[in-house]
Amino acid sequence: MPASIACLDTPVALIDVPRMQRNIQRMQHRMDALGVRLRPHIKTSKCLPVVQAQIEAGASAITVSTLKEAEHCFAAGIHDIFYAVSMAPGKLAQALTLRRKGCRLSILTDSLAATQAIVDFGRQHDERFEVWIEIDCDGHRSGVRVEDDALVDIARRLREGGMQLCGVMTHAGSSYELNTSQALQALAEQERYICVSAAQRIRAAGLACPQVSIGSTPTALSAQSLEGVTEVRAGVYVFFDLVMHNIGVCRADELALSVLTTVIGHQPDKGWIIIDAGWMAMSRDRGTQRQQRDFGYGQVCSEAGDWIEGALLSNANQEHGIVTLSSPGEVAITERFPIGSRLRILPNHACATGAQFPEYSACDASGAVHTWSRLHGW
Amino acid sequence: MPASIACLDTPVALIDVPRMQRNIQRMQHRMDALGVRLRPHIKTSKCLPVVQAQIEAGASAITVSTLKEAEHCFAAGIHDIFYAVSMAPGKLAQALTLRRKGCRLSILTDSLAATQAIVDFGRQHDERFEVWIEIDCDGHRSGVRVEDDALVDIARRLREGGMQLCGVMTHAGSSYELNTSQALQALAEQERYICVSAAQRIRAAGLACPQVSIGSTPTALSAQSLEGVTEVRAGVYVFFDLVMHNIGVCRADELALSVLTTVIGHQPDKGWIIIDAGWMAMSRDRGTQRQQRDFGYGQVCSEAGDWIEGALLSNANQEHGIVTLSSPGEVAITERFPIGSRLRILPNHACATGAQFPEYSACDASGAVHTWSRLHGW
Repeated sequence: MPASIACLDTPVALIDVPRMQRNIQRMQHRMDALGVRLRPHIKTSKCLPVVQAQIEAGASAITVSTLKEAEHCFAAGIHDIFYAVSMAPGKLAQALTLRRKGCRLSILTDSLAATQAIVDFGRQHDERFEVWIEIDCDGHRSGVRVEDDALVDIARRLREGGMQLCGVMTHAGSSYELNTSQALQALAEQERYICVSAAQRIRAAGLACPQVSIGSTPTALSAQSLEGVTEVRAGVYVFFDLVMHNIGVCRADELALSVLTTVIGHQPDKGWIIIDAGWMAMSRDRGTQRQQRDFGYGQVCSEAGDWIEGALLSNANQEHGIVTLSSPGEVAITERFPIGSRLRILPNHACATGAQFPEYSACDASGAVHTWSRLHGW
Repeated sequence: MPASIACLDTPVALIDVPRMQRNIQRMQHRMDALGVRLRPHIKTSKCLPVVQAQIEAGASAITVSTLKEAEHCFAAGIHDIFYAVSMAPGKLAQALTLRRKGCRLSILTDSLAATQAIVDFGRQHDERFEVWIEIDCDGHRSGVRVEDDALVDIARRLREGGMQLCGVMTHAGSSYELNTSQALQALAEQERYICVSAAQRIRAAGLACPQVSIGSTPTALSAQSLEGVTEVRAGVYVFFDLVMHNIGVCRADELALSVLTTVIGHQPDKGWIIIDAGWMAMSRDRGTQRQQRDFGYGQVCSEAGDWIEGALLSNANQEHGIVTLSSPGEVAITERFPIGSRLRILPNHACATGAQFPEYSACDASGAVHTWSRLHGW
């Protein structure tokens, strides 16, 4: 018989499965309506039952952040996998092994040097790697700029070297710095336009560039048109989190991941409630620190999940969290939150908090809790 | 045959075993000279070979931050284990199971409410729990203040309830905010004096209080006298890190934990070197942010471990790190740090960075690398 929340030891990472399913449906419907394929980024959950729910809802391919995720998902029957981090030459042997087993693993480059390493290794092992070129659409991290001659040079080097160009991809990571629908729509259009332009530039040079892959959760939920785009990658939408809530792309009742915790002490003079969820449970992510509303290490909710306004996880040591209240109220904190009582904490960043746990406790609509393991490491 | 560093996939958590052994010796010798027992806190490494090295050097007991650590170490033959986080009532059954198997597990309280829960559960199961009382010596987190009447009340409640009082303990966590030997010595003396005074207050009430346990790495390395103290708990000294280096209690060549990483790209116009160690490898810990020298997400070293002055991990996404140089130098970064070349990153906080990895690669004096697994989760 499945457990219930009342039986769980704390701290534990809880998934609200009905919320997660609604989040998955919402994104899939949006992509269907915009006429593009959804290739979810599984780096948020690193958890097969979550990925399988995304596939059941309509995703036919996935994005991964490590080759370990690719191996794990391929072993579970998922074939079309895009490893969306620039390929290190030292990881090509592992990628080759996966492809030789029948995995349709595609890889990424954004420089002539990395491309040459792929070509050399591919030729040496008689492997026609499927390769994407990363485009820099907002200056936030990696990628070649659309006006850079290296763009066409990389595409040509791949073709001359016998590799297969899948297409161009970009990630508008700077969307995490925005918080108005106007700015998000503008960045989504910039992401689309620049990536489509990169494909057109390659095509104008007489080279095939079949696919255009874009995506981040905020831009995917803000784009008004995806003309010229073939697929969207997005990850954190599956759980959402306080950073996404501050950006404005989800409601509070869409946050599907929380940490269940127990009250273990008080410092009544300071108004502190001490809980057994410190940074080892929440992660050190302070993603809301620079946003318009700083949630500390997380927003405190009741055990049932109701948001307690003004209650924040203000500070965190390894296994101790300090909860403070903006309005202490009439009842003493030792009575309102007695030792042994439980709370839930909504995280700043679902990808970082999930990674602190070897498994999730997934709570379905009936209240039954299932243990879903997740990947750790590389 | 053991691997060598050259064979390792990246990112990987490297332990420099000779440095670790010197760190262990240094702390053990200091405690021996001060006449107190060392009870290392294993929350830093969560790794049996590291703990065993501490025991071989002279530690006879350990401190843990989770009951999972206690179970793991007890299964490996370690008996005297102090779980140094205030006891949640819901965890008493797990503690009881350990004690019934023969583990000398001691637990912690800092309130009458938590003490009553221990007494009630202990009586119900006919178990005489060994209990410490936490003292607040610097206002940074948990603990009862020495002048608070609750101190003696808790000790009395434990005795009347049939439990065994081990003694008093404190942790001068505010030592992480200091950076002069004068301030550290003063805080170490404050930690000692307050904790010894708490024991004396209990004894003056006619109750036994055999032990006085204090400790944090900075105060343990700064204390001039430990009169009245019976044992010291310290954890991060086993690896040290950039936070400890900023505090001034270790040299750069004593940092024993680093993350080996591969260069996967460049943004030459911005002077960015992109590596495959992002926050998933380093953790989100920015512990040096408020110290006198901010190392970003880490100090960059050569593959061999030589500090590259002015090279920092300035920013981190999940699987991407951005390295910047304060002095770019004559040679282009694409030539000086070509794609596929390797670097090592020293972490801000060894406890947080270690937790991102399922295992360490422990490199011994001969250059051979051994895989040491570590605990994850609760």
